[in-house]
Amino acid sequence: MAEPLDKEQVQKLLDDSPYIGFMKLEVISMNLEEDKIVIRMPMRAEFERRRGTGQYHGGAIAALIDIAGDYALVMKVGGGVPTINFRVDFLRPATNTSLTATASTRRLGRSVAVVDVDVHDDDGKLCAVGRGTYSPNVG
Amino acid sequence: MAEPLDKEQVQKLLDDSPYIGFMKLEVISMNLEEDKIVIRMPMRAEFERRRGTGQYHGGAIAALIDIAGDYALVMKVGGGVPTINFRVDFLRPATNTSLTATASTRRLGRSVAVVDVDVHDDDGKLCAVGRGTYSPNVG
Amino acid sequence: MAEPLDKEQVQKLLDDSPYIGFMKLEVISMNLEEDKIVIRMPMRAEFERRRGTGQYHGGAIAALIDIAGDYALVMKVGGGVPTINFRVDFLRPATNTSLTATASTRRLGRSVAVVDVDVHDDDGKLCAVGRGTYSPNVG
Amino acid sequence: MAEPLDKEQVQKLLDDSPYIGFMKLEVISMNLEEDKIVIRMPMRAEFERRRGTGQYHGGAIAALIDIAGDYALVMKVGGGVPTINFRVDFLRPATNTSLTATASTRRLGRSVAVVDVDVHDDDGKLCAVGRGTYSPNVG
Repeated sequence: MAEPLDKEQVQKLLDDSPYIGFMKLEVISMNLEEDKIVIRMPMRAEFERRRGTGQYHGGAIAALIDIAGDYALVMKVGGGVPTINFRVDFLRPATNTSLTATASTRRLGRSVAVVDVDVHDDDGKLCAVGRGTYSPNVG
Repeated sequence: MAEPLDKEQVQKLLDDSPYIGFMKLEVISMNLEEDKIVIRMPMRAEFERRRGTGQYHGGAIAALIDIAGDYALVMKVGGGVPTINFRVDFLRPATNTSLTATASTRRLGRSVAVVDVDVHDDDGKLCAVGRGTYSPNVG
Repeated sequence: MAEPLDKEQVQKLLDDSPYIGFMKLEVISMNLEEDKIVIRMPMRAEFERRRGTGQYHGGAIAALIDIAGDYALVMKVGGGVPTINFRVDFLRPATNTSLTATASTRRLGRSVAVVDVDVHDDDGKLCAVGRGTYSPNVG
Repeated sequence: MAEPLDKEQVQKLLDDSPYIGFMKLEVISMNLEEDKIVIRMPMRAEFERRRGTGQYHGGAIAALIDIAGDYALVMKVGGGVPTINFRVDFLRPATNTSLTATASTRRLGRSVAVVDVDVHDDDGKLCAVGRGTYSPNVG
């Protein structure tokens, strides 16, 4: 297993990816002991479901969940971690707000890891929850 | 329940959404009797996982799956259909290719519908599969 | 919406179901304010994956998750709540132990509810996690 | 990778498991080329959701799905295949009927396999669909 990453290294990995960089994700906090990372996504025009509503399309929220879950592991194992699968449940519309994803690793095994992700809006309302399975390929 | 939509109406709905419009999705075919819709997504620079690889980020594939599943229902019920949840399994990397999503409704109930989505690359290889639950609110 | 149930009423509902009664589930605690219920399942010979291992088959754990998630809602809305779908992730084998499922409602909407379930063994190790979507049909 | 199994070997593995043996599952057909297995589950009193209804509890259907998905791989790789996770969607109640699960492998990778399972009643109606991820540990 490689070395854990610090916050600047994680932010640089996010920025260097064309896909993630376009989403302008920001690492708010990282806690390697608690296996937790918090990532913020600002609204942008291309995320709007229907013109003029200010409401996020679910696809943007799903992508945020996948990435936050992935980076809860990347920060730990220090490199690329493929997603095996993930599930997203949409709980409330997210409108005219940024979104904050809190990803917590539930299990980091040698070949499979499971991460939970909660997505809140700026009022602290829970808008979506995700659960992903990843291939950390440690050990 | 509203009237079913024709291909031009569905294409216009896709184009009018800022999120979906950015993805430049194209309706390839629709079959209302078989509850099936085929939607194509071309590669674009902002979908790339890591610069120079030509490989899609999973977030773009997940969004394609959510949308294709949704429109298998939208074309039938004629309006907005919220996603309750969906699951994506990534089977193979998708590199330097467009992606074609084939969405098939497995069950269209009054309050819940289930749709399966297969995503193939230009060589016909299955890259990802999705399964979504939606709120058609018919009847 | 019907009246919430007390612990004895929930236990009686569990016992009266032929399927659940066979599993001998026991309500350990209920908290209507926190939307949380804890249910214990003892090992029995018919749950064993392979003879002589003392290890639960995943099917028994999946059923426990579905039921615990369901009863986090049943205790609240006072009646039958159909499962729309659920997902189970198996994290560690569960061997020679009873299992304790803690179900927490993440969102109780009018037509859809989402519940998370954690399953621990007698040593407090997390063996499986579940997430279910249900039709509470309230309001 | 071990040798593929024949139908009698698979049936014996099912019967030898205390959990699966109790469910009295029967292998109806196997097709190693198409990666497909069909398994039938007869109704029994302990599967009933509520006394006198003749309706299956979802837990029994979920267990059938997990097992059918697993054995689509077991027949191929010749040994135990742990489930990583699975999802079940319930489409229609199953009442006074046996259930037939058709499991089809969508992808058999070295470390992860994905299998789809459709569950029909005796009238051929689709009652539930499942999708599971497994660890075949081949190669």
